[in-house]
Amino acid sequence: MKLISSKDNPLYKNICKVAQHKVKNELLLEGDHLCEMWLSHKGLPKLVILRESSQASYFQRWQTLKECACIVLPDHLFKQLNSVESPQGILFWVCVNPSTPEITYPQKTAVLLDRVQDPGNVGTIIRTCAALNIKYIYLTVGCANPWSSKVLRSAQGAHFSMTIYTQVDSIDLLEKSSLPLYITHLSPRAKHLYELVIPKNVLWVFGHEGQGVSEEILQFTHQAVFIPQSQQVESLNVGIASALALYEQQRQLGFEL
Amino acid sequence: MKLISSKDNPLYKNICKVAQHKVKNELLLEGDHLCEMWLSHKGLPKLVILRESSQASYFQRWQTLKECACIVLPDHLFKQLNSVESPQGILFWVCVNPSTPEITYPQKTAVLLDRVQDPGNVGTIIRTCAALNIKYIYLTVGCANPWSSKVLRSAQGAHFSMTIYTQVDSIDLLEKSSLPLYITHLSPRAKHLYELVIPKNVLWVFGHEGQGVSEEILQFTHQAVFIPQSQQVESLNVGIASALALYEQQRQLGFEL
Repeated sequence: MKLISSKDNPLYKNICKVAQHKVKNELLLEGDHLCEMWLSHKGLPKLVILRESSQASYFQRWQTLKECACIVLPDHLFKQLNSVESPQGILFWVCVNPSTPEITYPQKTAVLLDRVQDPGNVGTIIRTCAALNIKYIYLTVGCANPWSSKVLRSAQGAHFSMTIYTQVDSIDLLEKSSLPLYITHLSPRAKHLYELVIPKNVLWVFGHEGQGVSEEILQFTHQAVFIPQSQQVESLNVGIASALALYEQQRQLGFEL
Repeated sequence: MKLISSKDNPLYKNICKVAQHKVKNELLLEGDHLCEMWLSHKGLPKLVILRESSQASYFQRWQTLKECACIVLPDHLFKQLNSVESPQGILFWVCVNPSTPEITYPQKTAVLLDRVQDPGNVGTIIRTCAALNIKYIYLTVGCANPWSSKVLRSAQGAHFSMTIYTQVDSIDLLEKSSLPLYITHLSPRAKHLYELVIPKNVLWVFGHEGQGVSEEILQFTHQAVFIPQSQQVESLNVGIASALALYEQQRQLGFEL
């Protein structure tokens, strides 16, 4: 374990670049919960970064840290690496998707997000997918970056139990996927979510917050689905709509989680 | 209609105070959708504020504007009144709850939020409640301010079809409400949401993002409910959990929306 006290230290400068998302496939996980989720799903991080004033308490509580490469930073240098105003005292430097994986076409229920822009929505959908053991999620160009701090915070570590593909060519995916495409959409042919028998394995598509699913994806629709709602609202939030659809499918299947 | 071109104009200074949330029960609604929702639910605003460069298009599209008190601002003065970087060209100055209403205790299904902090979560829950024709929502001290710009944006105008009580004394509400209290909570006595027969009228409580529902509310529990989920996640987002509970109740009742 090493104390770094100068902002000109080369290692610290490298960590700053990672914090600023300037290093491909590398990032800092902020706070106890995300770091614990990493440990339980992925193992040890590349480096543990502790705030000087709280290092003792982490070493006392987290036995695993003794096995990790670890540095300690004075509070002012530590704080600059965080995206929140009052950070907890721990950061993990980790590699995600160390080499960009070849896309795997889904065999079981999976989710395609079409230009979902809001980081909170993307994070919440990833978290709901993890809660239902959905393993593959595909994001088109125009979706919020799933590895940004906001999405990571909102998903609460759900990223680490699934494979997330970004900048996905949706047409290629839809042409090569053998799963029926289910879309929440207010078209005249859409069926009532709760009056429909949903197959065990489908590819769900959820679309842009304002515009919904794009025309080029809609042409692949196997089943459009609407969620009953009062005329008091124009639509539901996309995170809510997706959770209702995914949970209704699992309810019908008896929740084998 | 009047063009105001100086930042020292007394009316403009007053509007600035409203934009900064310094005037009780008054606020600015930003953008087409919120303003349209206000028109359809509440009628005319106190004042319409248009951006000079887009006023013509609004007068062309929105016939109702001719009946409204209206001012026009040059683009730089208009922009300062908005909370987003690229605002649309319209603002409504409105009064909400012109006098703080006496609390009404719920007779039909209603929602109590206990210290739900995130504006996006509060807004999404208000939107889901409106989609299910829930008329009363009660917020304890510690919840995000439902009339803040972020909550208004996230709820998409759903506020205007319901009554929202803030700074609610939850103990008073629970003592005086005759509805059974249903709570999403991971206690040993909690029942599986989808194996439960939910009454037509209950008071649902959804709690703080990290800590859940507080002990003093828990003691009033009639039924604790858990939502099935994989061990990959610790919990669901509170907006998601509440939507799943509220929609499952309505599914059982046959969606009379």
